[in-house]
Amino acid sequence: MESRASAAPAPRALPYYVAFSQLLGLTVVATTGAWLGLYRGGIAWESALQFNVHPLCMVIGLVFLQGDALLVYRVFRNEAKRTTKVLHGLLHVFAFIIALVGLVAVFDYHRKNGYADLYSLHSWCGILVFVLYFVQWLVGFSFFLFPGASFSLRSRYRPQHIFFGATIFLLSLGTALLGLKEALLFKLGTKYSTFEPEGVLANVLGLLLASFGVAVLYILTRGDWKRPPQAEEQALSMDFKTLTEGDSPSSQ
Amino acid sequence: MESRASAAPAPRALPYYVAFSQLLGLTVVATTGAWLGLYRGGIAWESALQFNVHPLCMVIGLVFLQGDALLVYRVFRNEAKRTTKVLHGLLHVFAFIIALVGLVAVFDYHRKNGYADLYSLHSWCGILVFVLYFVQWLVGFSFFLFPGASFSLRSRYRPQHIFFGATIFLLSLGTALLGLKEALLFKLGTKYSTFEPEGVLANVLGLLLASFGVAVLYILTRGDWKRPPQAEEQALSMDFKTLTEGDSPSSQ
Repeated sequence: MESRASAAPAPRALPYYVAFSQLLGLTVVATTGAWLGLYRGGIAWESALQFNVHPLCMVIGLVFLQGDALLVYRVFRNEAKRTTKVLHGLLHVFAFIIALVGLVAVFDYHRKNGYADLYSLHSWCGILVFVLYFVQWLVGFSFFLFPGASFSLRSRYRPQHIFFGATIFLLSLGTALLGLKEALLFKLGTKYSTFEPEGVLANVLGLLLASFGVAVLYILTRGDWKRPPQAEEQALSMDFKTLTEGDSPSSQ
Repeated sequence: MESRASAAPAPRALPYYVAFSQLLGLTVVATTGAWLGLYRGGIAWESALQFNVHPLCMVIGLVFLQGDALLVYRVFRNEAKRTTKVLHGLLHVFAFIIALVGLVAVFDYHRKNGYADLYSLHSWCGILVFVLYFVQWLVGFSFFLFPGASFSLRSRYRPQHIFFGATIFLLSLGTALLGLKEALLFKLGTKYSTFEPEGVLANVLGLLLASFGVAVLYILTRGDWKRPPQAEEQALSMDFKTLTEGDSPSSQ
């Protein structure tokens, strides 16, 4: 069997793409801050500005940090698998906590002002994404970090975890776009069509959100950028192969 | 070298997933029709109802047909590659023409009513998606159907074509969601929060659109459902290998 070096060199273009994705992600966060600061009066918990905590937390948590958590296996290609896993899980925990603050902010704001909850497509998608995100984290934790799951169970669940992880990230982005649109139309109404500066800035923010999603998805799906199997995993995989193929390891 | 049967059996679960995706896709089209029929007065070209041509055409073209065009290589696994390619290209042509009618409808409607064009995030994303879709089709046609491109050029472009195809499909879905939200908020305004039947139906349509996207993406990305290489392609690939490896075909 061909043995692979345990510290394979990273693909040459990958760092540039990762840097570009981070630039896009930080621009998304900064533009959200600029929008809320310039046109919505900034941020505070105990006032009418409490609503503004919601978009900022959601963009930081469920867009930027969630996206970066997905990239961990591409960026830290040669670290021990366990370290990378823990970082992946931790980034998702931070993302979840920040998103939870954002969620509490909007429900609290609605309650104080007597507004209805959960009537819009944005809110339906948002609650769905939040629950899916929590379930995905729990299931991922039990399979990959909790020591009970067998190697074969992990191998079978891994593609599902990756697919649903990417899907939940994309649904988060879609939900963010719907929320942005909602916030714009509620405030601007027909003034939106006169190219108000706030409308133009928010449209740019929408395009930036979509671009960040495309950049993360590109890095994630490019075949030759996938994490190379490490010596430790190859050993495990060989053990498993020997076990399952019984006493005929050379049979094809 | 291990030879693969040219008519490999389809994975057992695939037909059920494809059937489910089609059921979802048709439900999306039917629900769009129901929404326009029940709450927007139906469809006509020469009246105020011209606007309604836009969402219906976009959903049929850039959601349902575009999604199905992506699935062609999974559904027709054992047909000749060329036949499948032509079907893939043709479905995209139909999708493009139907979307073009939908685009003309909304611009014509805006012009007749003196409304501004291209001010909203929905319209910015829409124009971007439409241009990308056209460019992707042209580039795909020149590489894969026009006889000029070499085997190695096609192999290098194929992953890009697949990634951008899936991305354009997802952007189309995101744009559809933004458009749906826009149409709702412009008409319902604050009545949206009182759970008006139209709002609830449109929210359900939004969730159906997202579900169709997830179903198509799942079928498309599942590794063991990818199209098996055919005898004709393997022959080509062998020729190419022999050519590039020169006179040492057995070297590793």
